[in-house]
Amino acid sequence: MKIALLDQLREQNPIVFNISNFVTVQDVANGLNALGASPIMSEEVAEADEMVGLAGAVCLNLGAFTLPQVKQITTVGQLANRQHKPLVIDPVAVGAVRFRAQVATELLQTIDPDVIRGNAGEIAALAGLDWQAKGIDAGQGSGDLVTIAQTCARKHHCVVILSGPTDVITDGQRTVQVDNGTPLFQTHVGSGDMLSSIVAAFCAVEPDTFEAAQTACLVFAAIGQRVAGTAERMGAGTFITKLMDALQFTTVAEIEAVAAYK
Amino acid sequence: MKIALLDQLREQNPIVFNISNFVTVQDVANGLNALGASPIMSEEVAEADEMVGLAGAVCLNLGAFTLPQVKQITTVGQLANRQHKPLVIDPVAVGAVRFRAQVATELLQTIDPDVIRGNAGEIAALAGLDWQAKGIDAGQGSGDLVTIAQTCARKHHCVVILSGPTDVITDGQRTVQVDNGTPLFQTHVGSGDMLSSIVAAFCAVEPDTFEAAQTACLVFAAIGQRVAGTAERMGAGTFITKLMDALQFTTVAEIEAVAAYK
Amino acid sequence: MKIALLDQLREQNPIVFNISNFVTVQDVANGLNALGASPIMSEEVAEADEMVGLAGAVCLNLGAFTLPQVKQITTVGQLANRQHKPLVIDPVAVGAVRFRAQVATELLQTIDPDVIRGNAGEIAALAGLDWQAKGIDAGQGSGDLVTIAQTCARKHHCVVILSGPTDVITDGQRTVQVDNGTPLFQTHVGSGDMLSSIVAAFCAVEPDTFEAAQTACLVFAAIGQRVAGTAERMGAGTFITKLMDALQFTTVAEIEAVAAYK
Repeated sequence: MKIALLDQLREQNPIVFNISNFVTVQDVANGLNALGASPIMSEEVAEADEMVGLAGAVCLNLGAFTLPQVKQITTVGQLANRQHKPLVIDPVAVGAVRFRAQVATELLQTIDPDVIRGNAGEIAALAGLDWQAKGIDAGQGSGDLVTIAQTCARKHHCVVILSGPTDVITDGQRTVQVDNGTPLFQTHVGSGDMLSSIVAAFCAVEPDTFEAAQTACLVFAAIGQRVAGTAERMGAGTFITKLMDALQFTTVAEIEAVAAYK
Repeated sequence: MKIALLDQLREQNPIVFNISNFVTVQDVANGLNALGASPIMSEEVAEADEMVGLAGAVCLNLGAFTLPQVKQITTVGQLANRQHKPLVIDPVAVGAVRFRAQVATELLQTIDPDVIRGNAGEIAALAGLDWQAKGIDAGQGSGDLVTIAQTCARKHHCVVILSGPTDVITDGQRTVQVDNGTPLFQTHVGSGDMLSSIVAAFCAVEPDTFEAAQTACLVFAAIGQRVAGTAERMGAGTFITKLMDALQFTTVAEIEAVAAYK
Repeated sequence: MKIALLDQLREQNPIVFNISNFVTVQDVANGLNALGASPIMSEEVAEADEMVGLAGAVCLNLGAFTLPQVKQITTVGQLANRQHKPLVIDPVAVGAVRFRAQVATELLQTIDPDVIRGNAGEIAALAGLDWQAKGIDAGQGSGDLVTIAQTCARKHHCVVILSGPTDVITDGQRTVQVDNGTPLFQTHVGSGDMLSSIVAAFCAVEPDTFEAAQTACLVFAAIGQRVAGTAERMGAGTFITKLMDALQFTTVAEIEAVAAYK
């Protein structure tokens, strides 16, 4: 776990090109910015090639996607592959909505992500496993989370992050579990989307995608945990405000002091 | 007034499907989430049927709407009617912009809302009454607010919420006025949109729409009032942060202690 | 410098019609609202004429723009010219993305802005000068900032605001530099967009566009500086919360006490 990658990220200030969903886009931009990356967003295909060229990594968020957006997502994903830019995909709600599972499955036949990040329901759906999901959140279901993540990783030949109380990060061979975090992440709608883009930011500064992915998860989870620890009972509004501050100020040493993974 | 519905909502965590406007969508999602509901958003017609099926209630926000969005709003509204899901409409700016009044009037000929929530100018416009409106806010005008709300409710055969310093809730027969609230709601642009979606959340757990609507108004207004009461002079930024916290933590008993309605 | 214009703005509560980018739209709306203006947003061409008619000023933000949006931006800009409403343009990322520079240049052949506001890279691009830009932020480059701003102003026959640690405001003849501000503005993604719309709000209450533009810059920069001064180390989350409060409450006298310009 190379937590010092955070310093590298802050020094290099990598540009992350995001196709974001309209619900959480502002938080994603501000989260990247606070951490030390440089967000760019665009919905126009005509500038996609140039945007990918500017970027150190690309993050495609499938939340709230229309068919024109899916077309653009496909183009941007293919451009990222062609330009060898790290590509992160966040398959929002594919566990809950059949239409999305179908579109995402088709999408994954035309582009090769380096990382897929989702909750248990989403990762299970892309792994072709049975899982119950509800709304945008992971539901209940049987099945070992590590097995689900590994199956998805082997199927799509990429790193998979299965987010939850414990994050599972795997490339199908290597597997790490990050135990840091706080339930407060679930009180704020944009937390997962923010993490996906932060994973892309780490991929922009570390060529080993598995290393980048696990570090991003640990950094984000540890920062959230530290924020949650500053008050006995914290609400969703205070949490997001303090999280933005902490993304900016938390040091590598502070994260190392609480890091919990196996 | 069944304020205990709030506990029921928190227990059931109903899914609310929102067609939201892009200005306030993040606050609407976070407000629903903080209160204890589960927001889903989508702009794609192809998944509308499935989204409505997942949802316990549907909220259509007419703010910032393009003609393709109006088409989707119409489809989603019809699906909600067909699937017998409670349907809330927020007719943003129909009191100020003739184009919107015209489109909204046409829309109401093809779908049957269970609740319409707007300010005085918006409700007057849908009631076919004269009223002055300015921008997205209610303007000044003559006419008794209760009469305006009742006229609109009878015309559209649904519950009407006329929001303002005093909220008027009526189904054309029964009428309640909620006196809770705070002028701070007007300092934050998303307050009204948030309320509309929260009304939908209550409709998902209470079959009597009038009961659900009045309770939603009282709960939201009372929570805002309590937040405002914690400081002598509170600004728009602090208010929205604390409002999110309070949506999450305020108890039924705390609301009952300040409830003011007739 | 007519700082008292702020009182006039708060009294008149002018409507500002914004074509905003989807990344920062909520902050722009809330910033305008907090300061004392009345924001309206719309993405529908069919209501553009009416929206412009309602507005005291128009602000076109070129961030995250699709070709349909550019078409709408063009229409709204032409309507603003025709209806003699002050028109502010924020040419987001035209310094970094060639496609945007090209589209913006074409746009400026069909509409006449009263004010263009951007960072050094953006203003240089529209001035036809060489400059290095990175992402949405201004990059490094040679060339005197005052010369760049004046060249752009003379080329486009309008007031130009070149934002940075020192803001340069010029109509090609008169030039003012505002030294107020804080690096914290850069920690929050929506700061520049917010300023552009606030410039429009001042243009709605002051016919001398140069006067309006310089006052808007000073008011915004001074308010941010005062917020930053309230804590030794402030993060992005706390800053935006406190900035919204301060936009609402800061008085003309408080701004005059810190005003620094030449």
